[in-house]
Amino acid sequence: MHRDEPLRSELVYRPIGVVHSPFRELAEVPKQPFDAPDVRGLVEIDPPFRAGLADLEGFSHVFLLCHLHRAGEARLVVGGDRGTPRGVFATRNPRRPVPIGLSLVRLIAVQVDGLEIAGPDILDGTPLLDVKPYVPAFDARPSATIGWLAGRPGLDRPSDR
Amino acid sequence: MHRDEPLRSELVYRPIGVVHSPFRELAEVPKQPFDAPDVRGLVEIDPPFRAGLADLEGFSHVFLLCHLHRAGEARLVVGGDRGTPRGVFATRNPRRPVPIGLSLVRLIAVQVDGLEIAGPDILDGTPLLDVKPYVPAFDARPSATIGWLAGRPGLDRPSDR
Repeated sequence: MHRDEPLRSELVYRPIGVVHSPFRELAEVPKQPFDAPDVRGLVEIDPPFRAGLADLEGFSHVFLLCHLHRAGEARLVVGGDRGTPRGVFATRNPRRPVPIGLSLVRLIAVQVDGLEIAGPDILDGTPLLDVKPYVPAFDARPSATIGWLAGRPGLDRPSDR
Repeated sequence: MHRDEPLRSELVYRPIGVVHSPFRELAEVPKQPFDAPDVRGLVEIDPPFRAGLADLEGFSHVFLLCHLHRAGEARLVVGGDRGTPRGVFATRNPRRPVPIGLSLVRLIAVQVDGLEIAGPDILDGTPLLDVKPYVPAFDARPSATIGWLAGRPGLDRPSDR
C-alpha cells in the first residue's frame, strides 16, 4: 500500500452552527440519545448555511456530527464500562484522536434558522459540523453484533425512539 | 440563544489513516455501501493510533468518518435524484460545507495495522478521521421515515448486509 503525502496533512473545518441542549456539564450528558429520548434540543444553523436545510421535512431522524469541544485530551485506550480498558475505536468515548461525535436524534421540526430535535446526547454549546438525513437502508443494521458490549443492559436490541 | 465567540473558530484535525478501495474515480464509487456489499477495502491506521484498534473484534459493522478530499466545492443546494434540487443537509451528497463522509461498512477482520472491510462507498486514498463501532441500540432505527427519498428503489427497508 502506498499513500500520497498530502493525505497526512492537517484539515481545517469551520463549524456550520451550534447545538443547544439542557446539558451544561459533561456529567449531565446521557451516554447515548436513547438514555434521554424526550429531552429537547435546538440545532442552530449559521445564516450562510441555512439554505441547506431545505427538504428535511419528513425525515424522522437525523445524524448530527459535532466537534466535541470539551472531550479533553485524546486517549487510545479508555475505560470501558466496568472499568476494563478498551481501544478507543471500539468505543463511543469522546476522547478520540479526532474528536467528532456522531449522534442520532429525532427531528421534531425544521425551522428557518435550524432544527428542533429530541434525544441529544450533546453538551450545550457544542459546535456543529454537519447534519445528515437518517436512511434505514443506509444506516440501520438491527442484527449487527456488538463485540465486548454484548449483554450490556439496554444494548440488546434497537431502540424504538 | 447566545454563543461564545470561540465556537465559531476554525478546527484543525489530523487524519488517523487512509482508506484503500478499488474505486479510483468518483464515478466508480457506489452511492452507498449497500450498492457494492461484496467489495473489499482496507482501512490503514497510522502507527501512532493503532493501539486504539483493540477490542474491535466481534463487532460486525463499523462507521468510518472520512474527509471527502475530492468532493469539490461545497454547495447548499445539490441535485437530488431525478434532477430535483435538494438542500444538502437533506442529502448524503459529498459536496457539503464540512466535507465529512459517514460510511457504514462490514468489519471482516482486525489486523495489526488496520481493518479489512466490506462495502466501502469510499474513493481509494480517502483520509480517515475516525472509526466507531456500530451499536444497533444507538444507531439502528429501522422504521425511520425518509422524507423526499420515500419510494426510491432499494430505500424501502434496511439492508441485510
